[in-house]
Amino acid sequence: MKIGVMGAGAVGCYYGGMLARSGHEVVLVARPAHVEAIERDGLLMETQTFTERVRVAASKEPAALLGCDIVLCCIKSYDSDKAAADMAPYLKPNAQVLSLQNGVDNAERLQRALGRPVLPAVVYVATAMAGPGHLLHHGRGELVIGESPGSPAIQSMFAAAGVPVSISDNVIGALWEKLIVNCVYNGLSAITQLPYGRIVQGANVLPMMHDIVDECVAVCTADGIRLPGDPWENTETIARTMQGQISSTAMDLARHKHSEIDHLNGYVLARGEALGIATPVNRAIHAIVRLLEGR
Amino acid sequence: MKIGVMGAGAVGCYYGGMLARSGHEVVLVARPAHVEAIERDGLLMETQTFTERVRVAASKEPAALLGCDIVLCCIKSYDSDKAAADMAPYLKPNAQVLSLQNGVDNAERLQRALGRPVLPAVVYVATAMAGPGHLLHHGRGELVIGESPGSPAIQSMFAAAGVPVSISDNVIGALWEKLIVNCVYNGLSAITQLPYGRIVQGANVLPMMHDIVDECVAVCTADGIRLPGDPWENTETIARTMQGQISSTAMDLARHKHSEIDHLNGYVLARGEALGIATPVNRAIHAIVRLLEGR
Repeated sequence: MKIGVMGAGAVGCYYGGMLARSGHEVVLVARPAHVEAIERDGLLMETQTFTERVRVAASKEPAALLGCDIVLCCIKSYDSDKAAADMAPYLKPNAQVLSLQNGVDNAERLQRALGRPVLPAVVYVATAMAGPGHLLHHGRGELVIGESPGSPAIQSMFAAAGVPVSISDNVIGALWEKLIVNCVYNGLSAITQLPYGRIVQGANVLPMMHDIVDECVAVCTADGIRLPGDPWENTETIARTMQGQISSTAMDLARHKHSEIDHLNGYVLARGEALGIATPVNRAIHAIVRLLEGR
Repeated sequence: MKIGVMGAGAVGCYYGGMLARSGHEVVLVARPAHVEAIERDGLLMETQTFTERVRVAASKEPAALLGCDIVLCCIKSYDSDKAAADMAPYLKPNAQVLSLQNGVDNAERLQRALGRPVLPAVVYVATAMAGPGHLLHHGRGELVIGESPGSPAIQSMFAAAGVPVSISDNVIGALWEKLIVNCVYNGLSAITQLPYGRIVQGANVLPMMHDIVDECVAVCTADGIRLPGDPWENTETIARTMQGQISSTAMDLARHKHSEIDHLNGYVLARGEALGIATPVNRAIHAIVRLLEGR
């Protein structure tokens, strides 16, 4: 089985690295600095259970995806359309594309752009790149994927690589569930550059977070989405279990990079507008993060 | 007429300086660095119409207010209660105290703490301290004061010093009108460290500002307050006329100082809670500024 990772940042390097380590042929399509380091020294994986240099192919060019049976798309949401166009010429007719991305509509957008089914995956992992070709894994790693003829085989492949995957008949609900947590924490952590455990201790922060959750729930309910769990319980759990965590949006802003905020609170705002649901606090978070991005 | 200024920062130095310049005996109660500079070199007033060193008394001690006929209280809102306690022993029985402060309830709080009438004043001036004893005046300077037996005399005194004062039968409405503009701009400018003209150009910023205004209007309407003007029109005017302006709250945060946010969006939130009016966007702004203050 040849597996390609499109956009191998921290998430892509983790899953690609786990699969390479279990014996699959894997190629990481990544930024030049990562490619050079990985070609020279392998992918340094510092995980919660092992530290290892994993030999894996890497390339700057999407053409490296040629011949892949499975492609994991780990591109930032704002680059999904470009990624689709870049990948399209090199995909085998029967290659299975998975979207391992934040936001809820990436699989749909890739599917539209590629003209083929794309399997959505909800990613629960805390990872970061410590430097070129150097992956840090802080915890978790499980995936939830949608139902499809190929899903059981994908589940087995990941299981053999030490990645627990569950198949859900409500993956869109699971994507929304994760989106809501992202809407609560990502923007606030970006604006304040504070970790989750500090944020929740602030005056009036919990009621504000409740507003964000309630607005998201109103939008997804109006959108016909059924949430698998209790989103407020999830929000509280994150504060307890990821106290020291800074959001990816916070890291993007700290590095003066484009963030995914348009696909987090901005998505809720846009869906809310389409459905006639007011989302004032999500709008405020979105507007403030955009102002900070523009500085 | 002996006039005292309690808490002579940029606002207090401006009005105290204008009155001293017109021949009144004025004493500024200020921070040590300002007092030393003013005692040595006078108060350097760099205004839009003149630059002048004004001879004026200055002291670190509230005891210097002894014998004052009029005391202008220019203390930050969060220090009103302490200021009242500090001033109280030195006030003549018939001294007239004016509150030249942001927020809407300072005169009321001073009045309660001092056990004597305090005249509220709405301050429209753009000033800043450029350094010890060095005042910059960027524009405006007019006051709106409440009705009282002494108000016409105060109006004349200021008029003779080049400070236009109007007497209003709805000074609480005028205070709320200013509060609303502060609720719109102060927090956002603090969070982003951007000037007003830049902020209003951000994506989704104007609708968010409209949310803030609408929430404030709902609270003050429920509180029985009549607004003299159109608060949204005021908000738009500020964006046009004060494009380069950074808020006092932004300066406080940049200097790691305590801000007045509890008396701006925090006040609207508290009044809203007391009156059963939801103020989610004011709450979000308040919570975020408090998080930034606590970093």
